[in-house]
Amino acid sequence: MNTTATDGGRTPVTVIGLGRMGAALAGAFLAAGHPTTVWNRSPEKAGPLVERGAVRAATVADAVAASPLVVVCVLDYATVHRLLGPAGGALAGRTVVNLTNGTPRQAGEVAELVAGHGAEYLDGGIMAVPPLIGTPHSLVLYSGAPDVFERRRPTLEVLGTATHLGSDPGLAPLYDLALLTGMYGMFSGLLHATALVRAAGVAARDFAPMLSSWVKTMTDAALPGIAAYADTGDHGGEAGSPLAMQAAAFANFLDTGEELGVRPDLLLPLTRLVERRVADGHGDEDIHGVLDLLATEPKENRAP
Amino acid sequence: MNTTATDGGRTPVTVIGLGRMGAALAGAFLAAGHPTTVWNRSPEKAGPLVERGAVRAATVADAVAASPLVVVCVLDYATVHRLLGPAGGALAGRTVVNLTNGTPRQAGEVAELVAGHGAEYLDGGIMAVPPLIGTPHSLVLYSGAPDVFERRRPTLEVLGTATHLGSDPGLAPLYDLALLTGMYGMFSGLLHATALVRAAGVAARDFAPMLSSWVKTMTDAALPGIAAYADTGDHGGEAGSPLAMQAAAFANFLDTGEELGVRPDLLLPLTRLVERRVADGHGDEDIHGVLDLLATEPKENRAP
Ligand SMILES: NC(=O)c1ccc[n+]([C@@H]2O[C@H](COP(=O)([O-])OP(=O)(O)OC[C@H]3O[C@@H](n4cnc5c(N)ncnc54)[C@H](OP(=O)(O)O)[C@@H]3O)[C@@H](O)[C@H]2O)c1
Ligand SMILES: NC(=O)c1ccc[n+]([C@@H]2O[C@H](COP(=O)([O-])OP(=O)(O)OC[C@H]3O[C@@H](n4cnc5c(N)ncnc54)[C@H](OP(=O)(O)O)[C@@H]3O)[C@@H](O)[C@H]2O)c1
Repeated sequence: MNTTATDGGRTPVTVIGLGRMGAALAGAFLAAGHPTTVWNRSPEKAGPLVERGAVRAATVADAVAASPLVVVCVLDYATVHRLLGPAGGALAGRTVVNLTNGTPRQAGEVAELVAGHGAEYLDGGIMAVPPLIGTPHSLVLYSGAPDVFERRRPTLEVLGTATHLGSDPGLAPLYDLALLTGMYGMFSGLLHATALVRAAGVAARDFAPMLSSWVKTMTDAALPGIAAYADTGDHGGEAGSPLAMQAAAFANFLDTGEELGVRPDLLLPLTRLVERRVADGHGDEDIHGVLDLLATEPKENRAP
Repeated sequence: MNTTATDGGRTPVTVIGLGRMGAALAGAFLAAGHPTTVWNRSPEKAGPLVERGAVRAATVADAVAASPLVVVCVLDYATVHRLLGPAGGALAGRTVVNLTNGTPRQAGEVAELVAGHGAEYLDGGIMAVPPLIGTPHSLVLYSGAPDVFERRRPTLEVLGTATHLGSDPGLAPLYDLALLTGMYGMFSGLLHATALVRAAGVAARDFAPMLSSWVKTMTDAALPGIAAYADTGDHGGEAGSPLAMQAAAFANFLDTGEELGVRPDLLLPLTRLVERRVADGHGDEDIHGVLDLLATEPKENRAP
């Protein structure tokens, strides 16, 4: 079987997993004119794609055999192993691009499994929701051998901006997870802030534009200092908003939540870390020092 | 004493409290040509302002008596009461603008104290750090009688954009605190994300631009849905990223933190709330439903 582009230059692609995201990926390949083979545990989800020209494979092994480029996007890495393990024989000579959300360690394990079957491997993290796939607003992060990425890049760019982070396959999941935790922290803030104004009888839609603009402005204001401290341990001179002063405001957050009827859950951990930093004698620094309280012993270094 | 503008149209202003923020406020009034009287518990902090033309008052009562517009910016509302209480007699006919960080309830209490002495009251929340005061990048929120705000507006705009939120004096502290909790949630995210990449040996400064752009994009993507749900209870149709799928990613965040050596503190509360929402049968909705788990009984409604 020919593993390079066919059909007028468009590489045949297989998509395994047709959940919300997998279906969007397969749809984007079809829209871009790639011969597309699909497989899903619940086969009926392939229906709309088959109507648009996709080929439904009967087994994972058939799906893998059908294309030089095999994109996998299922719920988790346990499912990736369950599906690719038995299809091992068909993997030789393919490029497997795994866009399932997982950890850096899990990416390393699948990379080994795939390499053991003579296939190339890229791990990826999709920084977009399904409706954005195939638009310029979609960003997909990749890691793995640079030459494999460069060769597959024209096809992968069908899905959105394709950014390569390095040869360690764990880098894409690392960036992906770190970006998502940043987002969920931000969501914690939006949710708590919105709960406060709602409890006070203020329309959230009137408050939202100010909240959005403030959160974005403060992201730009704070992140360079946090990153510089992470990289160099440099506090960046005298703090304009020292933690000791910020700690007084935290007390007001908790009191106001209690007055209005908003649980403090989402704010408590940062409150406690700020209090501890102040108690440890860092009241004159800015908030970046909380980074040091988050560091603990990595799992592999711990006593069993 | 004349309580309207003097000195070529520039209203005399008193600033009580010359911490980092109070000193910036007084500096902005001086720079704009307002006759400026200052008072601070530790009098030496007035030195640089006196060199620039400010008048140092010996007591709070003298400071209040010196100007029709009295701006107060100290650590907390307990300090506001401690300072303004004994100066009560001097307050009659003044406008007190309190820019100290406090709660809506505390603002109502100071409004009463001040009104009891025959003075007008505006509460305010400063959405800026001291170096931005007096620049277009500074936003100050005000609440209290609209006519008082309109009359004082030209002077208050010296400090930055002046936005009036309504006549209830508690509105400015409410918006202020809600915006700050939004920001601290976002900081929680930036700190956790940065701790993850640092623990993995990735330079935070290389990661920061992607994190900043992602957090800002997702703020705009998520906030309208959260606000609409808060106002109307409307889920906005089928979720593209249902909570049940998101819950699988949370498990990866915690595993990765454990592998790399990053404590989960800042992520745990949202993780637990998402799990609870899924367990309660809302796994097909998006994250806005977490708002309902944050609502509790307001303090005044609770059994004593
Ligand atoms: N949706 C998003 O917004 C988004 C954004 C970025 C990244 N992602 C990532 O993309 C991946 C897929 O997400 P999704 O939104 O497509 O989720 P989904 O709609 O829940 O789909 C899950 C997929 O996994 C399959 N699957 C689950 N358990 C399986 C098993 N035991 N054996 C075989 N197949 C199994 C499902 O097959 P059935 O159809 O048979 O159930 C389905 O194809 C996840 O890792 C997610 O984190 C999603
Ligand atoms: N800095 C910021 O980034 C920022 C931003 C927005 C809002 N704010 C708010 O502005 C207010 C002031 O903040 P700041 O940055 O100026 O804080 P700061 O530098 O710590 O100054 C605190 C001020 O309060 C005074 N004070 C404290 N306890 C006192 C007492 N018992 N009696 C009399 N005076 C007392 C201090 O007087 P001494 O000089 O004698 O100690 C000083 O003037 C706070 O409510 C803060 O939340 C600050």
